[in-house]
Amino acid sequence: MAPILLNCTGNEHNQLVQVRNPYLDTMEEDILYHLSLCTKTHNLPEMFGDIEFVCVGGSSNRMKAFAQFIHQELKLPENPEEVKDICEGTDRYCMYKVGPVLSISHGMGVPSISIMLHELIKLLHQAQCHNVVLFRLGTSGGVLAPGTVVITDKAVDYCFRPQFEQVVLGKIITRSTQLDEGVSNELLQRSSELKKFPSIIGNTMQGRLDGAICSFSHEEKLEYLRKAYDAGVRNIEMESTVFAVIGVALLNRYEGDQITSPHDVLVEYQQRPQIRVAHFIKKRLAHII
Amino acid sequence: MAPILLNCTGNEHNQLVQVRNPYLDTMEEDILYHLSLCTKTHNLPEMFGDIEFVCVGGSSNRMKAFAQFIHQELKLPENPEEVKDICEGTDRYCMYKVGPVLSISHGMGVPSISIMLHELIKLLHQAQCHNVVLFRLGTSGGVLAPGTVVITDKAVDYCFRPQFEQVVLGKIITRSTQLDEGVSNELLQRSSELKKFPSIIGNTMQGRLDGAICSFSHEEKLEYLRKAYDAGVRNIEMESTVFAVIGVALLNRYEGDQITSPHDVLVEYQQRPQIRVAHFIKKRLAHII
Repeated sequence: MAPILLNCTGNEHNQLVQVRNPYLDTMEEDILYHLSLCTKTHNLPEMFGDIEFVCVGGSSNRMKAFAQFIHQELKLPENPEEVKDICEGTDRYCMYKVGPVLSISHGMGVPSISIMLHELIKLLHQAQCHNVVLFRLGTSGGVLAPGTVVITDKAVDYCFRPQFEQVVLGKIITRSTQLDEGVSNELLQRSSELKKFPSIIGNTMQGRLDGAICSFSHEEKLEYLRKAYDAGVRNIEMESTVFAVIGVALLNRYEGDQITSPHDVLVEYQQRPQIRVAHFIKKRLAHII
Repeated sequence: MAPILLNCTGNEHNQLVQVRNPYLDTMEEDILYHLSLCTKTHNLPEMFGDIEFVCVGGSSNRMKAFAQFIHQELKLPENPEEVKDICEGTDRYCMYKVGPVLSISHGMGVPSISIMLHELIKLLHQAQCHNVVLFRLGTSGGVLAPGTVVITDKAVDYCFRPQFEQVVLGKIITRSTQLDEGVSNELLQRSSELKKFPSIIGNTMQGRLDGAICSFSHEEKLEYLRKAYDAGVRNIEMESTVFAVIGVALLNRYEGDQITSPHDVLVEYQQRPQIRVAHFIKKRLAHII
């Protein structure tokens, strides 16, 4: 994952999830408000201490489906239909734990995923998790054929810079969006059958001709997409500057902004990144030799 | 509501909802993807043509509760428990129609509410709605006593400017966040028992000491909050630069960043803006003389 939020301590093979906030140790309890969890009311190490993989995605239905899918893939004994939403006390996010895998939804856009990530990283820290790998299972717009799976190599902003700007106390802070090369390479290696694209980014998506307001022409839009393509951009989504991503493009923005593929085709598209990530997890857990 | 997204035509008493996008007329169908609605598959004028009030809020549970509440307040014949989620085909937003009132959730942060608003405005336009008033029923952080209701007078950005910056095709576009004075004044007038605060702010919330990263000191945070207070800010939330708001503060950020009030107190706080808006709607519909 992107090192924006995560710090690890320990040697290469035993890294503990740390947080970069000196104030946390001074707090009597840590309320993870949007996850409906708290250090006082929940035994987080017992509940989450064995987590090794975290998969996040925008839609709660998709992340429930992924939890059931990975449940079957890992051949766990219980009924996959009965996975339980750990955050059911809130309607902000949903969260499922399947063996060493956590599946969480994050809603749409950077602010929504950012709130979830702050609380997730604190959760992994409070639960004393080790060696955690995080994925985002995404859907996105693209400047390529719909259905293409894209492993994010470098997340760039609206000017195609590999950085993320955030306002903190009225000042703009710029953070690098460099991703974990080891995980990306391993994911590519584990998915050698997968098409490899260099790939890309977000920022509030506004290059649409089908919105309620449109302040630009069709030609201006195509020119911007061409510039993006020349800068190595292959898909367009809203949260990748804060996260490493394996995504699937639902439409080719050169051809329009509306998602016109039939529902069953879209459902099949959405399963593609999940299959890749399940393969990666099983390989890591040595379910596949 | 803020005029960012909305255009009206017609005389003062009969204003039709218009959109500012010349490309819409050229489209064969308009797919409101995240609402699970489409001009080809749904008769939008028949379904939504009588809408006069739209109330939006972040949480889907809260907007369902509001739909049931306004159902009772308007004394409609059906069972309020049976309000139906019109967008149940998607898990991005939920939407309930209760007589002339539409209640919709928008998730967290500007990108999420922005996607919803684009599709909502197009929906109102396609349904040929007239004289629509929009409210956001919010919860937020504050620099005042928790539970205080705040009617947004002016939405300002992280530098306390009444504007909203958005990236469109790689360029930064600045839009005014001026609100509809008539509606704000009417709301104030209809809620004369309500404490009046000048109010408010937006932009991605990052002035927290309890996040997974924290790059500033307690003193720097307090100094920023003092500056905000001096600039007229009374509550702090994430979506107000794109929307007129009546909100309730869940915590006083001077005193900390964690929401520590008991659940039943928070539930009661959340009902306060709903009661004000229900009063406004009933007055407009002449249920109350």
